[in-house]
Amino acid sequence: MAPQNAFYAQSGGVTAVINASACGVIETARANRGRIGKVYAGRNGIIGALTEDLIDTSKESAAAIAQLRYTPSGAFGSCRYKLKSLEANRREYERLIEVFKAHDIGYFFYNGGGDSADTCYKVSQLSESLGYPIQAIHVPKTVDNDLPITDNCPGFGSVAKYVAISTLEASFDVRSMAKTSTKVFVLEVMGRHAGWIAAAGGLVEDHGIPVIVLFPEIEFDRDKFLARVDTLVKKHGYCSVVVSEGCHHPDGTFLAEQGTKDAFGHAQLGGAAPVVAGMIRDGLKLKFHWAVADYLQRAARHVASKTDVKQSYEVGAAAVKLALKGHNAVMPTIDRVGDKPYKYRIGMAQLSDVANKEKFMPRGFITADGFGITEKCKRYLRPLIQGEDPPKYRDGLPVYATLKNVAVAKKLPAFG
Amino acid sequence: MAPQNAFYAQSGGVTAVINASACGVIETARANRGRIGKVYAGRNGIIGALTEDLIDTSKESAAAIAQLRYTPSGAFGSCRYKLKSLEANRREYERLIEVFKAHDIGYFFYNGGGDSADTCYKVSQLSESLGYPIQAIHVPKTVDNDLPITDNCPGFGSVAKYVAISTLEASFDVRSMAKTSTKVFVLEVMGRHAGWIAAAGGLVEDHGIPVIVLFPEIEFDRDKFLARVDTLVKKHGYCSVVVSEGCHHPDGTFLAEQGTKDAFGHAQLGGAAPVVAGMIRDGLKLKFHWAVADYLQRAARHVASKTDVKQSYEVGAAAVKLALKGHNAVMPTIDRVGDKPYKYRIGMAQLSDVANKEKFMPRGFITADGFGITEKCKRYLRPLIQGEDPPKYRDGLPVYATLKNVAVAKKLPAFG
Repeated sequence: MAPQNAFYAQSGGVTAVINASACGVIETARANRGRIGKVYAGRNGIIGALTEDLIDTSKESAAAIAQLRYTPSGAFGSCRYKLKSLEANRREYERLIEVFKAHDIGYFFYNGGGDSADTCYKVSQLSESLGYPIQAIHVPKTVDNDLPITDNCPGFGSVAKYVAISTLEASFDVRSMAKTSTKVFVLEVMGRHAGWIAAAGGLVEDHGIPVIVLFPEIEFDRDKFLARVDTLVKKHGYCSVVVSEGCHHPDGTFLAEQGTKDAFGHAQLGGAAPVVAGMIRDGLKLKFHWAVADYLQRAARHVASKTDVKQSYEVGAAAVKLALKGHNAVMPTIDRVGDKPYKYRIGMAQLSDVANKEKFMPRGFITADGFGITEKCKRYLRPLIQGEDPPKYRDGLPVYATLKNVAVAKKLPAFG
Repeated sequence: MAPQNAFYAQSGGVTAVINASACGVIETARANRGRIGKVYAGRNGIIGALTEDLIDTSKESAAAIAQLRYTPSGAFGSCRYKLKSLEANRREYERLIEVFKAHDIGYFFYNGGGDSADTCYKVSQLSESLGYPIQAIHVPKTVDNDLPITDNCPGFGSVAKYVAISTLEASFDVRSMAKTSTKVFVLEVMGRHAGWIAAAGGLVEDHGIPVIVLFPEIEFDRDKFLARVDTLVKKHGYCSVVVSEGCHHPDGTFLAEQGTKDAFGHAQLGGAAPVVAGMIRDGLKLKFHWAVADYLQRAARHVASKTDVKQSYEVGAAAVKLALKGHNAVMPTIDRVGDKPYKYRIGMAQLSDVANKEKFMPRGFITADGFGITEKCKRYLRPLIQGEDPPKYRDGLPVYATLKNVAVAKKLPAFG
């Protein structure tokens, strides 16, 4: 009997290294050809499964798959789409089973964050709920670093490195300009509920930079904030501010909302930096500059963390191995063994413990005044940004893979 | 008789590579110790000269000076300060002469853009106007790439590389997300009057990315712009937009002004990206993301162009050699000899032809519809972003130099 095929898809916001996980999944599956057939990638996440829009990754050369390790974004397309419960939309689950059956899919690898872990968990229950045998393994990925159980999340180390380097470089800039011009530089970074990404900006203190970090975990206090800026500028002549997009007032309203929502119903944020900069202008009459990193931070493969790239690959590879050991409804985790030297091993968590849970910054990682990170936090962060693993360059630009993405012939009528 | 000392200072907005020019000046002066004494750096540009706030660069080790080549920003501090005319403020010029005399300064190297070239030019006239013999050489630097005569400006190649890479990476991201989420990514870049920096975003077309560039040289037409976005999104599923901060309406008002002015009286810009994104939301109902690169683009030494670093060093070195040849009121230029293979030589321009002149994008570098760059423009840009010259890293972050910046003992009463 031929081995069953695998389904792999990418979900939610993409990262600089999610394709390294794809590379880990596909290369490990290829290394186990006797037990896993083809890897079919879902075009645009779970939507590819629902619409039978599958990509035959066996059409890609070994070199092209290897190149995924150096390519940011989702090579097969991602989606923001959450399966409803079985009770609310039984037809979707029946459709998934039809597609899995039609293409002899016995393994389901879903690469995403908390919302996607929920989707993966629901699929993992198909054996029990609808009698279709499938092994669903979640491959962790989120720049937000907010998945529980795992010590850190693939994708985070690279965005942290980007934010720390950008804060360092821009701080050198404002320090140069401060005598007659800009005194405060404000950088807005991602992080709706958890301040992990902003925290990385705090690492520049090691380089003598005066920096304020504004976390979603700490209610924003305008007066205290302006007083802190004033103190730092009086002492150093300048300062930098790293603000989470999720920074909010005591009443829960974000510093800046754009009035639009994404497919999960989350408010679309952006614009906290100009709001903070405006406060500095009005309250302190100081000259400012502000930047909003947005996609640049999570797409910056050119400056990815080598540790992050390695771990992203490893959780992809581990997911396949867990499936081959017979596991279902689990997720590989990164378990820290030691800080200095940094050591970790790949562990395993039950998806029921992962789905829809968010891990926030522990209060002990944030300084008492709420504006910085503690030494404990720095010890946690430093290993995650270690090492460089740059792409090759051609004509001055990085060489990133664009796959052929050959479609698998459809066998079923259209869905929906 | 001991050789005269040199004054060197950095002026205007700093860049990722202005310190490479400082390195070129100081190392070349050190190599000519018999003819040039010490290099005194002005702390915060010309203000350091006016206030007799001089830094003795001879106190820095050869290794520290060499490290400047890898360090973004202005190591001695910059300023936005323009000398008035001799008629309007004679006292300032007399003070400069007092300071130069007190410290036996016979060479004046000023590292900046168009406004700074004006300052350098005024100083170069001191011999004639006030009888103090000085040789003033301007060292070109501006991310805006808008100095005349020179084929390109040191600092520009690195910001162009940053913008092209960032646009490429973020475009891969939006391409991954477009099925269910973001369709348009908007990146705001610098360029108040000249669109050179935004033009670099157009280089990603070589990688198959649909991109629209909005230049200050082209009057913004909302309807035509939205129609172009609509066409690209319908064809490709997504597109990217790179907008100059200086993009403006036909009546001359910028897409976004912040209501503040800098020391030169220029309006402080920022926020064109959210304005453009809002048009896309309101006019096309498409989901968007936007980023404002601000200082990140000009401070990004971690991804500087090797060509740019080399040229920045060379114009610094050339400035010293021009001084030793007896020149005054001149600026080293980069003269392109050929495109493919790229060849250039270091030439020389008269400061009277440089000061206060801006070089805009030639119309032939912009496509007929005003939304992209032509092949001719790409041939111009490609050589400037060639090569990588990364800094060393320690603990995950680049190693950037912070100098001792030892002050020269003051000999004069305070000024002002």
